[in-house]
Order: sequence, then C-alpha cells, then structure tokens
Amino acid sequence: MTEKTHPIDPEKLDKLAEVAVRVGLNLREGQDLLLTAPMEAAPLVRRIATHAYRAGAGLVTPLYADDGVTLARYREAGDHSFDRAADWLYDAMAAAFTADTARMGVVGDDPMLLAEVDPAKVSRANKALSSAYTPARRMITNFDINWNLVPWPGRAWARLVSPDLPADEAVARLAEAIFAACRIDRPDPVAAWAEHNAELARRSGWLNDRRFAALHFTGPGTDLRVGLADGHEWMGGASVARNGITCNPNIPTEEVFTTPHAARVEGHVRATKPLSYQGTLIEDIAVRFEGGRIVQASASRGEEVLLKVLDSDDGARRLGEVALVPHSSPISQSGLLFYNTLFDENAACHIALGQCYSKCFTDGDLSGEEVAARGGNESMIHIDWMIGSDEIDIDGVTEDGSRVPVFRKGEWAD
Amino acid sequence: MTEKTHPIDPEKLDKLAEVAVRVGLNLREGQDLLLTAPMEAAPLVRRIATHAYRAGAGLVTPLYADDGVTLARYREAGDHSFDRAADWLYDAMAAAFTADTARMGVVGDDPMLLAEVDPAKVSRANKALSSAYTPARRMITNFDINWNLVPWPGRAWARLVSPDLPADEAVARLAEAIFAACRIDRPDPVAAWAEHNAELARRSGWLNDRRFAALHFTGPGTDLRVGLADGHEWMGGASVARNGITCNPNIPTEEVFTTPHAARVEGHVRATKPLSYQGTLIEDIAVRFEGGRIVQASASRGEEVLLKVLDSDDGARRLGEVALVPHSSPISQSGLLFYNTLFDENAACHIALGQCYSKCFTDGDLSGEEVAARGGNESMIHIDWMIGSDEIDIDGVTEDGSRVPVFRKGEWAD
Repeated sequence: MTEKTHPIDPEKLDKLAEVAVRVGLNLREGQDLLLTAPMEAAPLVRRIATHAYRAGAGLVTPLYADDGVTLARYREAGDHSFDRAADWLYDAMAAAFTADTARMGVVGDDPMLLAEVDPAKVSRANKALSSAYTPARRMITNFDINWNLVPWPGRAWARLVSPDLPADEAVARLAEAIFAACRIDRPDPVAAWAEHNAELARRSGWLNDRRFAALHFTGPGTDLRVGLADGHEWMGGASVARNGITCNPNIPTEEVFTTPHAARVEGHVRATKPLSYQGTLIEDIAVRFEGGRIVQASASRGEEVLLKVLDSDDGARRLGEVALVPHSSPISQSGLLFYNTLFDENAACHIALGQCYSKCFTDGDLSGEEVAARGGNESMIHIDWMIGSDEIDIDGVTEDGSRVPVFRKGEWAD
Repeated sequence: MTEKTHPIDPEKLDKLAEVAVRVGLNLREGQDLLLTAPMEAAPLVRRIATHAYRAGAGLVTPLYADDGVTLARYREAGDHSFDRAADWLYDAMAAAFTADTARMGVVGDDPMLLAEVDPAKVSRANKALSSAYTPARRMITNFDINWNLVPWPGRAWARLVSPDLPADEAVARLAEAIFAACRIDRPDPVAAWAEHNAELARRSGWLNDRRFAALHFTGPGTDLRVGLADGHEWMGGASVARNGITCNPNIPTEEVFTTPHAARVEGHVRATKPLSYQGTLIEDIAVRFEGGRIVQASASRGEEVLLKVLDSDDGARRLGEVALVPHSSPISQSGLLFYNTLFDENAACHIALGQCYSKCFTDGDLSGEEVAARGGNESMIHIDWMIGSDEIDIDGVTEDGSRVPVFRKGEWAD
C-alpha cells in the first residue's frame, strides 16, 4: 500500500504524528520508542519516527502486524498452533519498557479481520497471546512508562464506518474525522492540546472540589441517579507516568471520568447511540437500576447478546465508570459511529458496565479490597455505552441533597 | 505496496515460498518460525507463512524492516542515536532460537538505501547492531537451528541490476532470474532441489575422495595453483543443523566449496566478473600470489578501494575459500550481475579473500589454533570474487603430483 493510494492529507498526517509524539508521548530526550502498527499505517509510522527523532529519540523500533500472515495461520495452521504465542517477543517488549522505552500503538486494524474464521480458535489464540503479553501489559496498565494510542484511518475500518461510500472516499471521510477529533485541523494543534488538557484538568478539578455524592441524568427516556464512589477522583486528559513524564495515553480524548458507587445507582436510562460489541450492534438499549444493579434490560436489536453480557458475572450488571463529554466535542459533531472505543467513548457522556478504574480515587494506590470498600465495582468486563446527547441535563447532588447544574442540553452548565 | 503493482508471477512466487519452507528450512512439525524481511516483500512473506503452516508450523512471526523509519533516523536523529541498538529485540531472537525456532531471512533490500547518508553514522550504527546481534548470530553461524536465506525481487535492487529498463520490467526481469536460479521454473521444483542437492553431494564426495593437494586453474590471464588446507572437506547444498534438521541455508546455491591453504597459493589470476564491494564496482581485478600472499594487484576501475581492502589486515591478502560452480549454472546463464553475494557467488567459480570456514574440515569442530595449523586463513574480511568462465580449465593435483581433470571449459570434466 503506497502512500499515494491513500486519500489522506499528508500535511495533516504529519501534524497527527507530531501531536502523537509531542503531546501523546511527550518523548524524553534520548528515550527509545517501541511502536506497534498495522502495516497499512506505515506512512503514519514513518512520520512518527521522524518527529520522534526530532524530539531526541534514541532509537525508534517499529513492530508491524501483518494481517496476511495472521489470516494464513487461521486458514492453514494445525490445531496445535492456536495455543501458542511469541513469548520471546512479548518478553522483549517488557525488557524494553524496563529500560524506559516509550510505547506507541497505532490503532486502525481491520475490525472484521477474523469475522469469518473459527471463533474458538480466535479465543484460544487470544488467550495465549494475552498470557504472553501479561508482563508487558502490566507495565502499561501500571503506567510505568509514557505511552500513547493514536489512530490510523485503515481501509477496512473506513469501510465499516462508511459502508455506502467508495473506498477512497470512505478513507478520506474517516481521515478527516480523525484529524478533527485529534484537533489536527486547528492552526496550532500542539497549542490546542495544551489548551484542551488545561480545560479537562479544570473540569476535573471543579468536579473534585464539589465532591458530589451523585450525578443525576435527565432526558428523553432517562432519569438516572449515579452515586459516586467514596473518595472518588475525577480524571481526564494528560497524566503523569511513573517515569515522571506527563503524557496523553489516548489521542483523541474528550472525557473526564470517575468511579461510580456499585450499590448506589437508581432509575432508568436509555442509550443515545448504538453499542458495537464484538461484531454485534446493540441498538436502543434501555435499562433500569435498583440498588446499583440492572434489574431490567431491553434493546431493539442485539438484545440476546446484551442479556448474555449482563450475565457474565455479578459485577457485569453494575457500573464501573461514569464519564462526561460535551455534545459539542469534535467526535460527537462528526455524527459517525466509529466502532472503536478510542472514538466512540469520546463522543458522548457514557457509563460503563463492569470493572472500575482503581486509579480514580483521591488516596492513590488502593488494594482490591479498599477499592471495593469505597464502592468500586469488580467484573471481568468493561463496556462503555453512550447516554449523552444535546437533550441531556446533569445535576450534581451533594451529600446534603442540594443540586448544582453540571450539564445543560448536553453542554457544561457554567 | 500492494501485490498487484508487482510484475511478479504469483504462481512462481508461491513455488519459491514452498521451496524456501520445504527445502530451505525443512521445517519440523510444530516448529516455530521467525522471519525477517523488508516490508516490500510482504507478498512473499505471506506465502511463506502459508506454506510454513501447511508444513505444521507452530507460530510464524514476521519482523519487518521499514526503510522509511531507517532513513528517518539518519535524517533526523541526534548524534547519540548512532551508538544504540534494539538489544531487547536481538536478545529476543536469541531466546527464540534457544527454543528451537527456525529462522528465515528474506533478502532483497535496497542496496543503495544508505548511499547518501553519513558513512560514519552508518558504520557506528552497524557496529552497535552487530554487537547487539552477536548472541543470535552466533547461534546461526554455529548452525544450532535450521535457517534459510531466500531472495525477493525488490524494486531498488531490480533497478540496480537493470538500470536501463523501466521499473516494472526491471522487477520482472529480476524476478524471472531469481525463479530460474532457484529452480522454480522446473516442473517440480522440490524434486529438482532434491536432485540438485544429490548432485552437489556427489561432487563434494568425489572431491573429498580424491583428497587433492591443490587445484590448478588455467585460462586467459589465469595460471593459479590453489593449495588446499590439510584435512580440508568439500561441502555444498544441504547440510545438517545441530538440531538434527537437514536444511539448505542458501536458496539459491550452486557451489561446492572448501578451505584453501593460506600459505600455498602461487601464480596469477584475473577476475571474470566485476566485484561489487560496499557500493564500489571493482573491474578487471588481476593479482599475483607468492607463498599464499597477494604481492601484486591491479584493477581497471576501483583499484584504490581494492588496495585498501587488501591492507585490512594480514589475512586480507590470503585466500579463505575456493568454490567450484559450473558455467552452465542458471545464475551464470542469466548473464546478470546481481550485486548480491547470494547470487553472484553462485554464478561462477570463485575464490574469497580473508576468513576461512572452520567447518570445512574432515575432523569436525576445530579450535582457531587447529584451523590455523591446517592452513585455514584468518581475517576480518571475507570477499568472494569470480574467476570462472567457459574458458577456465581446472586440474586436481594430488600429493604425488599427478593431475586429474576437474573442470574443462567451465564445466565438470567427468
């Protein structure tokens, strides 16, 4: 795939690479960089390498994923293959992170790549990979090093987002949506991100100062009171990795988010966008909570899958995250459904079923028991779904029951 | 670069992949495979993966080299970058080989990629890489595992080989030359390789039975007596790795070769093809040996580089290899200069200046001292250059001075 065949503005692509390196990673002088990417994303990877070296990178090492080789495995390999993983490679990634190598992941793979292959094999292969990746992944989730995910408008992804457009137009449309979401269309994108990070920090700070006991969402089909965990902390935008570097792990990002109380959610809520869950589209989700637990759930499409998900474990019927995103956010304004969490969770206010973020507490590193004692939910799933729109109002409810406007008609109230 | 843009016969490419897996590696059921390749070679890599999985591979892991990222480094990186290497990645390769992972290298990179960048930086980067790669490379040179090099008709390589052809035609020409050299144009290439390996083994066996003290090359400008090392062994074609697998490390290969005696080479010899040495073309090399040492050397072009090479160290003026290749070999018949050792050293009888192969002795693993005592040469260089043509005769000279025809007019005499 040469660059010429891509209907992607090269100047904006270069700016995206610059934002990923300078804002996403905030790469330190002399720091090495390990990049993973689909092969198709090579034009972006090369620009990222260029900006990384300009920023003083020691050595940039790309590891490309080849969909063709992956498919060859599912088509041709013997049964024994699907419990194997390249442990030596994942151990090497952990070794690189231990040596303070920064990590960037370019996302934009074909979301339907494995749609036609045996799901049992996919599940076994993922399990083997997940196990091999554990040491390296733990260093990412522990935030030991600065890391960043950045999108590439892959052709298959673009086709899924815009199935009715010719291939090149679909890519062009996704590319422009990505550039807008990543603030690449601003005159000075790096400055725009500094401003955006400051804004997210200001919003988080305001919410943290208020110490609301609950948020109350009202709108068409929605009257939901989401109690917040004891000692919860709102977060959003840039954060500081344990190696001391302030980075933006997600480009784009629009949300400020925190941990709800697993037992203190009451009322009913209707989803405002379809949920794409592992290849199934679930539409018009409507649920009712009692004592934090979903006691009634329906969907106009994909209801069976939804009900199965809710039965994954006890925590699957309770909330693990609540996040605020204004309706005017660039991702929301695109009007697209991206079938990609990096985007869709930044398109509107959302809640997530399942596992909470243990870092969203004011008193730092907590044990699993301490998280649970404060109301943090535990589950093997974490599924975000959108409940925001321009018709949603949100009030903050304080401990003494007084109410403060937080959102009005989908926008920050102040 | 999509496959469609390559003027390469897909059926022959598939056969090449099959030969690389079944003949080159002789992959064992359940064995993993680590592949390195330039990104451009993805169409071949995917076919190799397919055949590897058909042969029972556990897991095939490609590591792609991205010329664009490499160039970004030379263009943009600070001075500190050029003493760095991805130790974690090369250590991982050694770990993979320790776990009996087979190794395939697809060659066909742009030979001129770094022609325009600072050679001092290239030299430092190569030194750092070479040091990082030492543990893994040692396992390859020790032949701990089955390994194979296989060619890809890269566009930049094709342009170098056929500078006067349009790009697509140059690729098509190189591809066809590769297919012919690799016996892919035969009705059953795998059977053709079995036959070819048997022939190379028969030739090696015949030479080993004769135990010649020397070979005497005569032809236009050439009257050269090459003494052979004491206890030398002729080798060629398939060999057995220490993991017990018989493989063909080089596809193509045409040579049978052994170790000459560093002190017993007398007479003069004229090169029959230009030598491409690190971007310099050296033409019409003519040298004279006395007591195994080159005492006079000239070239019509690149003489300065040649003389500098000869002064690399003491062993650089002595021979480390002598190899026999009939003029009718497919590579020779192509009439092309490939600027690639994998091909050019298989186009004609050749000798190599510098380091000898310690494995070319009848009594197996020898220490450096034992190799030297038998006449094996030592040097930091190993440069093959062609002295064969259809005008060359070779006699084998036995210990008692009797002579046996080995080659007549560039072909095996028997």
